[in-house]
Amino acid sequence: MAPVIPRSGDAIFASVERVNAELFTLTYGAIVRQLLTDLEEVEEVNKQLDQMGYNIGIRLVDEFLAKSNVSRCIDFKETAEVIAKVGFKMFLGVTASVSNWDADGTCCSIILEDNPLVDFVELPDTCQGLYYCNVLSGVIRGALEMVSMKTEVTWVRDMLRGDDAFELQVKLLKQVPEEYPYKDDE
Amino acid sequence: MAPVIPRSGDAIFASVERVNAELFTLTYGAIVRQLLTDLEEVEEVNKQLDQMGYNIGIRLVDEFLAKSNVSRCIDFKETAEVIAKVGFKMFLGVTASVSNWDADGTCCSIILEDNPLVDFVELPDTCQGLYYCNVLSGVIRGALEMVSMKTEVTWVRDMLRGDDAFELQVKLLKQVPEEYPYKDDE
Repeated sequence: MAPVIPRSGDAIFASVERVNAELFTLTYGAIVRQLLTDLEEVEEVNKQLDQMGYNIGIRLVDEFLAKSNVSRCIDFKETAEVIAKVGFKMFLGVTASVSNWDADGTCCSIILEDNPLVDFVELPDTCQGLYYCNVLSGVIRGALEMVSMKTEVTWVRDMLRGDDAFELQVKLLKQVPEEYPYKDDE
Repeated sequence: MAPVIPRSGDAIFASVERVNAELFTLTYGAIVRQLLTDLEEVEEVNKQLDQMGYNIGIRLVDEFLAKSNVSRCIDFKETAEVIAKVGFKMFLGVTASVSNWDADGTCCSIILEDNPLVDFVELPDTCQGLYYCNVLSGVIRGALEMVSMKTEVTWVRDMLRGDDAFELQVKLLKQVPEEYPYKDDE
């Protein structure tokens, strides 16, 4: 059988069903606003956005594997590159870059200069402390957990807080060996 | 000056920024799940989804007018057609149809056979009474209010409730004459 060649993020993005980015941006904004109204603490909103992202991430990974032809990544380094170059392109239509690797290759930054979630967004003073895009950290954490990587994902830079880019630090905590509920020969 | 020709929904949809439809679907699902957790009554969730849609609609109308070259519609009939043929295509990538007009042209149905909001969605028995797509009724109501039409938008058919299509009844309550805060010659 000929080897299946992984597809580029651009090629996948061009072929999948899409919706208008502004509708997505406004819908996401409506969620954040809703959470700010319902929950009193900004810290609670951050937690909920992360949890929502996690729930999205554990499901999105199926679509990712099905459409991208990406098979098992060799290590965390390759995985991070695939998230940045293929994953972000495939879902949000933008490309991220990976940098700031630590010595043992278990911690890096994913950097995003273009982020459709924040178009037209300005945070009022009452929202200091809000990680508006916290859904993204949850998505990455959830998706990685489904491929057996337990991670911690935290914001290092945030353009809504005046930084020059969005930077997420992704730290590999534990690589869980995959367990199957049945043996191969069953 | 040459007249500006309205653009088709397809042409606009092809030219605007877009994101992956599955990401949108899952994000919307995460909102609904969040609201079901936070609010106890399904009726309250319907109300909140409608309100969120309204907030989205009053902003989306700007993008619609800017990108579509649609100028003032002659009447409610033309407006409904534009929403179905251009609006739905431009934002969700699907086309809706208009039917069931009443005699005086103030009430019609917008019918949707393909609806990206509900991909992979199945409602559990505990969600009887939920109008899962209620954000759409709010979007239409909000967008129309920005062009001076007060409407009432209600679900007639819902595929998640076993119907064969999604059908929204849009009823024109009042057409408010536009008021400018200044005179033309000021």
